[in-house]
Amino acid sequence: MNFDIIRAGRAVLHVTDLERSRAFYEALGFIETASDSEQIFLRGLEEHNHHSLLLKKKETPVVEAISYKVKSEEDLDRLAAFFEKQGTDVKWMEKGTQEAIGRSLRIQDVSGLPVEYYAEMEPAERMIQQYHYHKGAKVQRIDHFNCMVPDVEKAYDYYIDQLGFACSEYTAGEEDKIWAAWLHRKPSVHDVAYMNGFGPRLHHVGFWLKDPMNLIDGCDVLASMGYGAAIERGPGRHGLSNALFLYLRDPDGHRIELYNGDYLTSDPDFKPIRWDLDDPMRQTFWGHEAPDSWFEEASEVLDVHTNEKVEGMEPKLKKRKPTFVT
Amino acid sequence: MNFDIIRAGRAVLHVTDLERSRAFYEALGFIETASDSEQIFLRGLEEHNHHSLLLKKKETPVVEAISYKVKSEEDLDRLAAFFEKQGTDVKWMEKGTQEAIGRSLRIQDVSGLPVEYYAEMEPAERMIQQYHYHKGAKVQRIDHFNCMVPDVEKAYDYYIDQLGFACSEYTAGEEDKIWAAWLHRKPSVHDVAYMNGFGPRLHHVGFWLKDPMNLIDGCDVLASMGYGAAIERGPGRHGLSNALFLYLRDPDGHRIELYNGDYLTSDPDFKPIRWDLDDPMRQTFWGHEAPDSWFEEASEVLDVHTNEKVEGMEPKLKKRKPTFVT
Amino acid sequence: MNFDIIRAGRAVLHVTDLERSRAFYEALGFIETASDSEQIFLRGLEEHNHHSLLLKKKETPVVEAISYKVKSEEDLDRLAAFFEKQGTDVKWMEKGTQEAIGRSLRIQDVSGLPVEYYAEMEPAERMIQQYHYHKGAKVQRIDHFNCMVPDVEKAYDYYIDQLGFACSEYTAGEEDKIWAAWLHRKPSVHDVAYMNGFGPRLHHVGFWLKDPMNLIDGCDVLASMGYGAAIERGPGRHGLSNALFLYLRDPDGHRIELYNGDYLTSDPDFKPIRWDLDDPMRQTFWGHEAPDSWFEEASEVLDVHTNEKVEGMEPKLKKRKPTFVT
Amino acid sequence: MNFDIIRAGRAVLHVTDLERSRAFYEALGFIETASDSEQIFLRGLEEHNHHSLLLKKKETPVVEAISYKVKSEEDLDRLAAFFEKQGTDVKWMEKGTQEAIGRSLRIQDVSGLPVEYYAEMEPAERMIQQYHYHKGAKVQRIDHFNCMVPDVEKAYDYYIDQLGFACSEYTAGEEDKIWAAWLHRKPSVHDVAYMNGFGPRLHHVGFWLKDPMNLIDGCDVLASMGYGAAIERGPGRHGLSNALFLYLRDPDGHRIELYNGDYLTSDPDFKPIRWDLDDPMRQTFWGHEAPDSWFEEASEVLDVHTNEKVEGMEPKLKKRKPTFVT
Repeated sequence: MNFDIIRAGRAVLHVTDLERSRAFYEALGFIETASDSEQIFLRGLEEHNHHSLLLKKKETPVVEAISYKVKSEEDLDRLAAFFEKQGTDVKWMEKGTQEAIGRSLRIQDVSGLPVEYYAEMEPAERMIQQYHYHKGAKVQRIDHFNCMVPDVEKAYDYYIDQLGFACSEYTAGEEDKIWAAWLHRKPSVHDVAYMNGFGPRLHHVGFWLKDPMNLIDGCDVLASMGYGAAIERGPGRHGLSNALFLYLRDPDGHRIELYNGDYLTSDPDFKPIRWDLDDPMRQTFWGHEAPDSWFEEASEVLDVHTNEKVEGMEPKLKKRKPTFVT
Repeated sequence: MNFDIIRAGRAVLHVTDLERSRAFYEALGFIETASDSEQIFLRGLEEHNHHSLLLKKKETPVVEAISYKVKSEEDLDRLAAFFEKQGTDVKWMEKGTQEAIGRSLRIQDVSGLPVEYYAEMEPAERMIQQYHYHKGAKVQRIDHFNCMVPDVEKAYDYYIDQLGFACSEYTAGEEDKIWAAWLHRKPSVHDVAYMNGFGPRLHHVGFWLKDPMNLIDGCDVLASMGYGAAIERGPGRHGLSNALFLYLRDPDGHRIELYNGDYLTSDPDFKPIRWDLDDPMRQTFWGHEAPDSWFEEASEVLDVHTNEKVEGMEPKLKKRKPTFVT
Repeated sequence: MNFDIIRAGRAVLHVTDLERSRAFYEALGFIETASDSEQIFLRGLEEHNHHSLLLKKKETPVVEAISYKVKSEEDLDRLAAFFEKQGTDVKWMEKGTQEAIGRSLRIQDVSGLPVEYYAEMEPAERMIQQYHYHKGAKVQRIDHFNCMVPDVEKAYDYYIDQLGFACSEYTAGEEDKIWAAWLHRKPSVHDVAYMNGFGPRLHHVGFWLKDPMNLIDGCDVLASMGYGAAIERGPGRHGLSNALFLYLRDPDGHRIELYNGDYLTSDPDFKPIRWDLDDPMRQTFWGHEAPDSWFEEASEVLDVHTNEKVEGMEPKLKKRKPTFVT
Repeated sequence: MNFDIIRAGRAVLHVTDLERSRAFYEALGFIETASDSEQIFLRGLEEHNHHSLLLKKKETPVVEAISYKVKSEEDLDRLAAFFEKQGTDVKWMEKGTQEAIGRSLRIQDVSGLPVEYYAEMEPAERMIQQYHYHKGAKVQRIDHFNCMVPDVEKAYDYYIDQLGFACSEYTAGEEDKIWAAWLHRKPSVHDVAYMNGFGPRLHHVGFWLKDPMNLIDGCDVLASMGYGAAIERGPGRHGLSNALFLYLRDPDGHRIELYNGDYLTSDPDFKPIRWDLDDPMRQTFWGHEAPDSWFEEASEVLDVHTNEKVEGMEPKLKKRKPTFVT
């Protein structure tokens, strides 16, 4: 490839009530960089740029885009050329069109997900050592997108072969078909994961916490503020990725993962870790069985060209709720 | 009263396979003080006496006794006189009868539970600063017994009025009937709790952890040793008692609570905290709905005189699985 | 004894600038119960009563009193009779004289320290589950007073023999003289400690934290708010008491200890732990050598009758800075 | 550049007593991959390759090499060509010469430090989810080398301009001269840092911990095993890099940093953070003044060609012990 995708950069989510969303995300510890009557820009405590989560007030909660930061403007041009050559329609959003970021490139990706690429974002003050402003779960930074797609192997092949992602861990089931995969550009476990399911849908956006106690503290603060019902799953640990996790549903049902327990995947000879679909420790190394909602519900996504919801499809592999340790 | 009960002292549990139990409790971080082919004596890291958990090898898993430490031998005599005056049969076990403890007094208490009192126990080395021997969940000390009984108000009245316990927190339901109560002699949340249910049965023995990370570490270690299925509930926080909890089932099904988050109840003017039976934050301030097993299963108890299992009774108040925050 | 001292209850400190003090103690995480132009009443997060720290605006920073809570008004009467019988002048402060507490009894104790006893204090809301108001080091409750006195054995004998305290740990030096002692009424390591030194002076007031991470978080928050220079010693662990400690100097130089790592001392057969004065792990199990200020500086105290500063005296035993592990 | 350096890979240290070193590093929580009478290979818990620390038994404690992993064998060839073109003598160590790694390239770098590059290392089992083998400070992985050099700007320019490193943070003093710099290839704060001082010497090897409690636990375990005197500095936090740190001296005086608190530096537009040499929060955001030994002592290094110690030089900039917050 002649382009360099750096990392998961931001999610653009539609929400129906900005005040309600603001209250929720501030409770989690996000910093509000800017806002107006139509949108709120949020960032984590260590982030040096304007936002990693953009909430737009709209009629219907849906995902407008998941965005990757690329190395430079030239990488955007080369990406555009690459997509066009493949016959993928490219939508340019020129600088000035969107607040706080430079020009961006949007496409409907191989799985039908609305994906955006950008190189430039306005800087913002890093709050990493402003400890007296840290609160809630002390969210540090965006980490990854997790997507439900009907054909994981197709996404897997495309992101690895065409876009230069690497695989850290994956789940394989019958006939060794890939059931789920964790892919990265930055040398962490993932920037994006794909799970077999009705889609394309966004299962969750993952944000990284700096230590396990922030997760416990986050639960306590959320519960004492009346957000106990927002905790959908966790705390627990996944075998796959070794994540200490907490899954939350925001006021519009978008799912947020608070995540601690990553590891370094910088080495080219790092061997992807294979988990069997039936290994009970894969989904839950310890902790409770996930509720059905976690397997069934996810956020619908928009078509970048029509702004209509993308029609979902049943997955190619059988839907499977994992076997839990019991 | 003219006797002084100090605190919950030890539990005597029957188990069916000593090796299997040893492996489990060592994984949790207990220290083995002594053992032979018939029994294992276990203590926590800060305990200065011989054991707080005695496991005896028997055919059937059952509770032989829950034991309280009293101030002196004279307190035992006065307790015996008190019970006898009430017509309660007293069983003395003379010094030398039981390993590591002085003479003890056993009765079937007002709820039908096998209760033992003792003043003297052999000392053991405190491991509190032998940090290199701390492992698993780093269990510090015994904290409390939690019992399911058919008539909580009867137990409540007796332990408070007759035995000098104080109440820290309680749950009340319809007509203000006490549905559950947390009672203490040492100035913590409890030495014993009673919950409305089929009984008398021992719901769990609670052991205190010194910090929340020990609970996370405990989960990780248990899971990596293959004990993931022993985790029945948690981690989560109770509203009532503010406990950060983890409930485990030992190889015979006895339930152990690992517990962090106590507070000081030394003051005579401390007002017991009332929780409504329907308050969803009472059982679970945050965390998952408890599994049915947690509400239904508990360890049966022996009759101190006949060594037969005590017949259980349905509770006076309706059995109720609490409403969870959803 | 026919009186029952419950625990260390509150410290009354004179400070020179209320706003400056308020800012400091709020940064630590104290809750302000009430205040006016002359005083601020502060409490910890789990405290159910009005305050454990009373700051009064005065010309000179000094200690007005260290106060113990007793069981009942009758205990106050019996304590007064006891002191008067010994020829100790008693100063009654009738209910209504002091805000938020009932009548109190003040004496200059055997070491010359200004000591107050009270039974009644107005209640206040416990903030233990209001997690969204927890901040800084999340101070939970008052734990103990640490005093420098010229004759530790005299204080030791008096508090144990006459007032019913028990000893958890002590330091002995040449000829087995007690160089420092940790004494308690509540079953923790201490309500009061005495150290050999120029006095009577108050070395520090100790407040209890619920977990070690609160100490790290407290350091971060203090430093980011510009209070880094207030950190005099720590974090580190004492061998004696097993405390994970942080020592701070408030804006007037009063010393506050943030403290985690206590243990239960409820048992009458708990054997006091002896440390040799020359054991390098006694003062510092790990962590840096204490600065000279920690050994030399302490808050002067008032005479409860004259309101004048109490003249200090050189200690009976040699002053000794401990040998540190090097 | 046409070569790709991945990350700091391993340190090769000479020690005088293998048993003594083994005991120390095992106490810290390292895993021993292999050993014989001449050497010990150690790795952290998440490392998927053979070792990150190689201790060789020799007469004199000294640094044989600090090693970087490169992407492929071809990168090694291109690096060799690059060095040779500059007139830098290159020493090849063919595959088979050293245990567990492929061929490597050694040079004396621009600062006179012995630097090794390798692409291949034998794999080893990752212990990340073998939680029951985690102990001590639970060392996760090698993070960085910190070197004292006489001319920081020279090293800075060379590593950035010639070798493709990026700067995350730096200290500048009079006339804006760079006094110290933190440089990285992997997107963390650093793979290597240079500090102005007598050198070339290796100040320390930094290992990453997954959470702050591991640092507290590490102190406790080290102290209880008798290694209290090995703790040279900390726990504390650096302003620069935001590291929560603990500095240890191994039995031969080599300095190890245990490190938590990193952040992501993946973005090409990340602006290096400038600290003023006189900013008291730079060295110590909170915590004690560093001892003189920390500023003055460091490990000497070998010449890769002669195997003789490299002669040190006084630094170009004035040596400066930083001003601490007091």
